[in-house]
Amino acid sequence: MKQFFDPQWVVLIGVSRQSGPGAYNNLEVMQRYGYRGRIDVVHPKVSEILGKKTVPHVDALDGIPDLAIISVGRDRVLPAFLQCAQKGIRHVVVISQGFADADDRGKELQGELQEVARQYGVRVLGPNTMGTINAFSSFSTAFVDIEKEDAPPPISVGAQTGVLQVGFESFTGRLGKAIDIGNAGGVDFIDVLEYFETDPQTQVIALHMEGMLRGREFLKVARRVAAKKPIVILKTGRSAAGAQAALSHTGSLVGEDAVIDTAFKKAGLIRVRNMVELRAACQALLHFRSMAGPRIGVVTATGACGIMTADACEDYGLELAPFPEEIRSELENTRIAWHRLRNPVDIWPLGMVTGSFVEVFKRAVGGLLRSSEVDAVFAIAAAMSSPLHKDLNLADAVLELNRGNTEQKPIALWLYGGDQVAQGEVLRNEPHVAAFDSIDEAVAGLAAVWRYSKLQKELQEEGADSGPVLPVSTGRPVAVPSRGLLVGEEAFSLLREYQIPLAVGELTKDVEAAVALAGKQGYPMVLKIVSPQWLHKSDWGGVRLGLENECELRKAYGELEELFRTRTPLGSLEGILAQKQIQGMELLMGIKRDPQVGHVLVVGMGGIYTEVFKDVARGLVPVGRPEAEEMVESLRIYPILKGIRGQAGVDISALVDVMVNLSRLAVDYPEISELDLNPVFADSHGCRCVDARIVLE
Amino acid sequence: MKQFFDPQWVVLIGVSRQSGPGAYNNLEVMQRYGYRGRIDVVHPKVSEILGKKTVPHVDALDGIPDLAIISVGRDRVLPAFLQCAQKGIRHVVVISQGFADADDRGKELQGELQEVARQYGVRVLGPNTMGTINAFSSFSTAFVDIEKEDAPPPISVGAQTGVLQVGFESFTGRLGKAIDIGNAGGVDFIDVLEYFETDPQTQVIALHMEGMLRGREFLKVARRVAAKKPIVILKTGRSAAGAQAALSHTGSLVGEDAVIDTAFKKAGLIRVRNMVELRAACQALLHFRSMAGPRIGVVTATGACGIMTADACEDYGLELAPFPEEIRSELENTRIAWHRLRNPVDIWPLGMVTGSFVEVFKRAVGGLLRSSEVDAVFAIAAAMSSPLHKDLNLADAVLELNRGNTEQKPIALWLYGGDQVAQGEVLRNEPHVAAFDSIDEAVAGLAAVWRYSKLQKELQEEGADSGPVLPVSTGRPVAVPSRGLLVGEEAFSLLREYQIPLAVGELTKDVEAAVALAGKQGYPMVLKIVSPQWLHKSDWGGVRLGLENECELRKAYGELEELFRTRTPLGSLEGILAQKQIQGMELLMGIKRDPQVGHVLVVGMGGIYTEVFKDVARGLVPVGRPEAEEMVESLRIYPILKGIRGQAGVDISALVDVMVNLSRLAVDYPEISELDLNPVFADSHGCRCVDARIVLE
Repeated sequence: MKQFFDPQWVVLIGVSRQSGPGAYNNLEVMQRYGYRGRIDVVHPKVSEILGKKTVPHVDALDGIPDLAIISVGRDRVLPAFLQCAQKGIRHVVVISQGFADADDRGKELQGELQEVARQYGVRVLGPNTMGTINAFSSFSTAFVDIEKEDAPPPISVGAQTGVLQVGFESFTGRLGKAIDIGNAGGVDFIDVLEYFETDPQTQVIALHMEGMLRGREFLKVARRVAAKKPIVILKTGRSAAGAQAALSHTGSLVGEDAVIDTAFKKAGLIRVRNMVELRAACQALLHFRSMAGPRIGVVTATGACGIMTADACEDYGLELAPFPEEIRSELENTRIAWHRLRNPVDIWPLGMVTGSFVEVFKRAVGGLLRSSEVDAVFAIAAAMSSPLHKDLNLADAVLELNRGNTEQKPIALWLYGGDQVAQGEVLRNEPHVAAFDSIDEAVAGLAAVWRYSKLQKELQEEGADSGPVLPVSTGRPVAVPSRGLLVGEEAFSLLREYQIPLAVGELTKDVEAAVALAGKQGYPMVLKIVSPQWLHKSDWGGVRLGLENECELRKAYGELEELFRTRTPLGSLEGILAQKQIQGMELLMGIKRDPQVGHVLVVGMGGIYTEVFKDVARGLVPVGRPEAEEMVESLRIYPILKGIRGQAGVDISALVDVMVNLSRLAVDYPEISELDLNPVFADSHGCRCVDARIVLE
Repeated sequence: MKQFFDPQWVVLIGVSRQSGPGAYNNLEVMQRYGYRGRIDVVHPKVSEILGKKTVPHVDALDGIPDLAIISVGRDRVLPAFLQCAQKGIRHVVVISQGFADADDRGKELQGELQEVARQYGVRVLGPNTMGTINAFSSFSTAFVDIEKEDAPPPISVGAQTGVLQVGFESFTGRLGKAIDIGNAGGVDFIDVLEYFETDPQTQVIALHMEGMLRGREFLKVARRVAAKKPIVILKTGRSAAGAQAALSHTGSLVGEDAVIDTAFKKAGLIRVRNMVELRAACQALLHFRSMAGPRIGVVTATGACGIMTADACEDYGLELAPFPEEIRSELENTRIAWHRLRNPVDIWPLGMVTGSFVEVFKRAVGGLLRSSEVDAVFAIAAAMSSPLHKDLNLADAVLELNRGNTEQKPIALWLYGGDQVAQGEVLRNEPHVAAFDSIDEAVAGLAAVWRYSKLQKELQEEGADSGPVLPVSTGRPVAVPSRGLLVGEEAFSLLREYQIPLAVGELTKDVEAAVALAGKQGYPMVLKIVSPQWLHKSDWGGVRLGLENECELRKAYGELEELFRTRTPLGSLEGILAQKQIQGMELLMGIKRDPQVGHVLVVGMGGIYTEVFKDVARGLVPVGRPEAEEMVESLRIYPILKGIRGQAGVDISALVDVMVNLSRLAVDYPEISELDLNPVFADSHGCRCVDARIVLE
């Protein structure tokens, strides 16, 4: 990977004869960016470009460059790539578009490219990429002329687009290194993370992802890296329309967004929703080391902004610290005895009375920084450009305060007014200090730091490799078909092998069998049509509940048989399931195979409210007991499961058993694409699955 | 109100002798801001300030100024104010802090001030205010030196703080006029809205509110104004901590935030959550006239940003328009036949192949603007500062496109890169065009315009005054005590007068009465302790359900009597309510009196899930049938109320009857502070209230 970021010798294939405005000449851009290594240009027709002599063919080079960069029309990529491979070049960037991002022919071409790469042991970056940028070594493969930071920050970007490189001020605020994996025909996010993991110039990692490839491996590597360096991720295509657009952009497979959330949480990634949150999180993580807790001390030049900060804290999961009583005497002033000290600390009246706003600011911020009840300080103040308000200039005061900030607590700032940028510039490289563009961005930034502090502690305690990320099968007690649908007894027999408690019932062929069963188990009874054609049996009226006596049972049985024949005359009726009606809370449990991360275990509220409230928890298979317990506890109905208002709860331990066993089942049968237990009735004595449906694929 | 914004003659009381940096001399600030009217300064000791001769006392003035501005310590405010009033000055700004914003003494002082104002017919702005700013007439009462726009925009701010004036670039982006009502000791938001309503220099209104005074009147006026001009409102104190901070800031009463949402919706206000959304909405409403629908056409220089836009559209309730097929042929290019055209339109490959990005941009944006399926266009493009990318400069192309924008559709832009500000400046005053700082802000801004377009249409159709905002009582059929608690039969007798259907039950004094009732109505029965000390009877075990026969009934009755005596030996047992147990969906209904907006009607899911899912709809009393129907339809459980999966729904018309009747009851009994019907059992035959509790205050 190092050769993509820091090559000593590169060869360019597909450089424009034109240069200057509108030419997108990547030789010109590379030189302007300040690359000091050797560059060769291959051009079959022109002998000189921008004063540099070209070679007609890669073969003509007097050695093997570290890196080739190809940007020709898609039909000419493969021959050029093959020449590089045959020459012995081991790293190639394919800038060109029109591959898996485009049509079927493009997909074929990309497949051929990947095959050649495999044969010759060449690492490919792209196709459809802007390549890499490395501000530390002044290297850029981009065809867009980007400003370079003189003192590059240790923030590195991995993206499925070049726009985070081109518009980095908007996305991450600052930039040290960036790589655009494009269609991920070779280098993917796993490679990127593994490079950043050990790269000394990377301290904060920002990812932009449209689709996850090699999902499980990615999560495993991410978890390991996240224990060392924060990874902020903007996963786009959250919405249905966004997912649709993502499919067209880089041809990524897109899964359910809620599953992505579960997976990222497991891997210790800090997910942001949009570019505003991305920039805030990057700015905070670049400057702030960590937070011991979520308690914020706020100093503000105006009470209104204190209230806005309190609202933002709730939005982002932070808290206002209690006012530290030990600093009360430092701030109190007899001339405004009516001024109420609390957190947020409104310092304007104090500044006016004492005649030095800066002095009061220093006392307030300094006191909060020293308080053991405050984990970070957020200060809001005016930065006016008027010469009349030079007395409000706080940048120097912040630098002084930070010299006494021995615990290295975050000092977040929002400065408003015309001098905002200038004062921010003074503080730009100060550690533990960061200025933000709004209250909400400052609070979002601090929240990202707090999330990372918690995550890092968890990951380090659990051991980064401890996550049960890769499932291991223990055997297959029952044979199942490689594809198709299991319902009724076929499904039950598999579930029994995994100790899933099933409602006692019988698949009956005639009404006498049902009556006999009722005689043994008692009323009320339930009857259900079992047939591969009747997957939506409830909606079709194929379920009859609350049959109180033999008369009702016989009548309902006959009606169901009639209904089946009428509705699906050619259908295959496996039988009618007869069960004693069970009481309890209706839950659902199941397994889904997600295209990006594989098997996901689901548990939640069942019955008629399922779709209304969507109260569901998800976990990546394999799921162990502690994780299953966490899943149950995360449900909104958890208080009811525990038992409220004098009502008995359900046997949560029994639920957890079923979840863990379902997870084992999924591990052993990777061909399961869907498994639904719905409903599962739970009460204080345990739980029972009443119906099941398994799809194999 | 005009005298607060546009006085010809002002007198300043409490000007500092100092001037220059750190002095906060409001004479100096007023002069720097460019005020050209007459200024007098009252100072008892100094004869000249900043070269201007002072007068020792207001009495010494040779006439009556339009406006006095007082900024002395709080204890000296009242004498100065009285002098102004006696002189005949009719408008006074009290800048000073330490009134209702502070302690009890401050509240007293503010009360006295308001009383003097009332006696003398003086309008007060403040106390605790920055006063007003009017960039059109170069007038400012502020003690902070703010930059003035040369061509002020028609955007006016009403706030409970001065920070929106001082930091307007951050909050509203631009500023024409602003007023800080401070503690609202005189001028409040109603006055502000009525002034802006007819002010020709106001086209967009932005409000910052901490607490609502004269809630119903405010909503009525807001609704009338909103039919003419958009009102964006940032109501802070959304969170518990924020509300707490608001209480300390301006002494505002704070109600439940969900009620505020309901009230604002009713009044046609566009609520934003934070300052980022406020700025986006103001920028959009300042430039964009209206939107005929929510369908956005997106043109982007990079596919990744198209996906981000799709996500943002879902977050803010907009849609991606279908790709207009009529522009396909204009954009298709045989040299990249693989390029897929859709919305978002990714124009980078087309720009590269045709050699003119700007040309392709014009064709794509122009085509979308002309399409009848597109209501607004959002364009994303690079604005690079490098001389190599002058060809990407789109500002001129946008101006040209806008000349052909005959339908005046919004053209929103996000330009990224170092030339962003410069290109934005070119477009700054162009109507129907606005540049934003991020994708999310652009989409949030367009969403605000779409919301306003819908609102305005609704308000104009319904008639701005048609809202049933002020309740009118029709009588009081039953006398109730002025305060206290009504439970059991006392509550039921009031409810019966309003045709609220009640479960047939009987408040029994002994078990024989309960047995006799069961004999008439049948089992299963329910028993409940009725006592003013047993408001939480369920939690205390005072409710017994599902009593199947006489034996169980007798046993439970005795146990309840025993439980009552044990738990509350000195309590007063009104009796034990005996009812036949009712089936059906458990709902709750009720009335709450909100401190800011008065009576609110509530309907929602009852039973054990009430607190878990908080599925509740609210409406301002009086509630008519159409509004009650809308409330029921807005519930998440509405599909279940209608009936799903073959199950019968409930009689919604009966529910609506109860709601409307409850609303009438609340109008007739303003002393009701809380009324709970919980549970109300509903089924396909109607609904019945099983228990009620009314708090009077």
